Amino acid sequence: MRIVSLAGGIGGARFLRGLRAAAPDAEITVIGNTGDDITLFGLRVCPDLDTVMYTLGGGIDEEQGWGRAGESHTVKAELAAYGMEPQWFGLGDKDFATHIVRTQMLDAGYPLSAVTEALCARWQPGVRLIPMTDDRAETHVIIEDERGRRAIHFQEWWVRLRASIPARQIALVGAEQAKPAPGVIEAIGAADVVVLPPSNPVVSIGTILQIPGIRDALEEKTVVGVSPIIGGAPVRGMADACLTAIGVETTAQAVLELYGARLLDGWLVAEEDAGVRLDGVRVQARPLLMTDLDATTAIARAALELAG
Amino acid sequence: MRIVSLAGGIGGARFLRGLRAAAPDAEITVIGNTGDDITLFGLRVCPDLDTVMYTLGGGIDEEQGWGRAGESHTVKAELAAYGMEPQWFGLGDKDFATHIVRTQMLDAGYPLSAVTEALCARWQPGVRLIPMTDDRAETHVIIEDERGRRAIHFQEWWVRLRASIPARQIALVGAEQAKPAPGVIEAIGAADVVVLPPSNPVVSIGTILQIPGIRDALEEKTVVGVSPIIGGAPVRGMADACLTAIGVETTAQAVLELYGARLLDGWLVAEEDAGVRLDGVRVQARPLLMTDLDATTAIARAALELAG
Repeated sequence: MRIVSLAGGIGGARFLRGLRAAAPDAEITVIGNTGDDITLFGLRVCPDLDTVMYTLGGGIDEEQGWGRAGESHTVKAELAAYGMEPQWFGLGDKDFATHIVRTQMLDAGYPLSAVTEALCARWQPGVRLIPMTDDRAETHVIIEDERGRRAIHFQEWWVRLRASIPARQIALVGAEQAKPAPGVIEAIGAADVVVLPPSNPVVSIGTILQIPGIRDALEEKTVVGVSPIIGGAPVRGMADACLTAIGVETTAQAVLELYGARLLDGWLVAEEDAGVRLDGVRVQARPLLMTDLDATTAIARAALELAG
Repeated sequence: MRIVSLAGGIGGARFLRGLRAAAPDAEITVIGNTGDDITLFGLRVCPDLDTVMYTLGGGIDEEQGWGRAGESHTVKAELAAYGMEPQWFGLGDKDFATHIVRTQMLDAGYPLSAVTEALCARWQPGVRLIPMTDDRAETHVIIEDERGRRAIHFQEWWVRLRASIPARQIALVGAEQAKPAPGVIEAIGAADVVVLPPSNPVVSIGTILQIPGIRDALEEKTVVGVSPIIGGAPVRGMADACLTAIGVETTAQAVLELYGARLLDGWLVAEEDAGVRLDGVRVQARPLLMTDLDATTAIARAALELAG
């Protein structure tokens, strides 16, 4: 069986661990979100790709959900001693090495997809991880504060401001010009089923869907989604702040409608959201909390079963 | 009083600590060797500039003589886990931050001299540290082994091979096109005295002298050198391997002749080398071992006195 999954960061990565366990013999291709990417201290940082890679490769800080286990922060402290900004983004010493390798390879002319493959050669995530695009397309957020209306990088809004200032608009800058990375459209075309993890529907899955060609390719396939909203609240993270920004309610029903029946064939919701429905989409309710690997594997198995 | 000093790495940096103590009210400008510079993992590393900066700024690993005190090596270990080469160059986590700052500034368009000034704003070395040039000019060594005759970067010969394979030739690639960094010629012109520390006469001082314009400017000034050779052996390091490569004996006499009477006005040698002489150069013998700051300060004071 060939499975394609789109993934953001923490939630997506944890779901993928369950998906891998639910379908141990499947070829799984993960199309990773790179809208969160940012250049810090001259180094290219791809938070979502790394979270997937570290999580599936056994290197993740389990409690935090991102970054490396047993991490130290010497480089960051030294950069601060030099007065270097920003200091609000958490970069550990082990993590720095990943960004140094990536930046060196990008500067040498390798596309991000080739760099990601090279990094994964060490981590052996058990899936094929491809960035949504090799082109630069970063999410920016329009906010309005005492300094007026302005656009800031998604990471500044998400990490520094903790989404505390309402987003007036969320835009993937460069989306129109971006092309799917090599292998993305081919993997979707060859897939028996596509699974959308309970990642952020706006700045993770929604970002991937904005890369020209990806949504069209997905609409031809059997796509099953796992709701990231349980009983009106995000499973984790601040998806509500993102949904509000694009005028969508924080409900499993609203996210189902956001994705729509052209994209989705099945929608897995939590038991408290059993009433959700949309013409053309099979909805099934079951426990959706990814409390441990067994629970997550059961969710992934249910998603595959819903695909038929 | 205005003093200019040329400096390589460990030996030069230690001497400068004595010079600063010997002339606490002097304006000291240090012209640093950048022939040892190398790009590793996409980061620009300037070992001699950093050794001077860390030593005078109180951040040096005193025992080792280079790198930062209390250093850790997480980034390097992670790069090794990714299979990244080279692993023979010692880069600590604190040190990595310096190279990250430098590389980011260079990529942003700042010349190395401006970057060095910015880094020194943190370290407050008590001297003005200027790289010999803002241009790329790196020392390469011609060796001959079972793979034939070939050129390798100085650092590969020095650090990886520990100078164990004889150097057939030592060349500063790019020297002819290099210009002295802004301030270098001006500082020499304004100097009351120029002091050459007991740095390597070939790959440290000799490199600086190869940048067009610097030797000419020095020949107009009162220049006093401290012999890096005591009783036929280098004070420290492997200067003998470099001297042999350019056909010069490892003696205080031979290095005096290498520098020559056009450059030097005074030459400080160890007591066992009291017989050394050259027309036009005042030679003085005294203890030259830099065993501690007091001994080093006394050597620097003697050098200044020899200048008259």
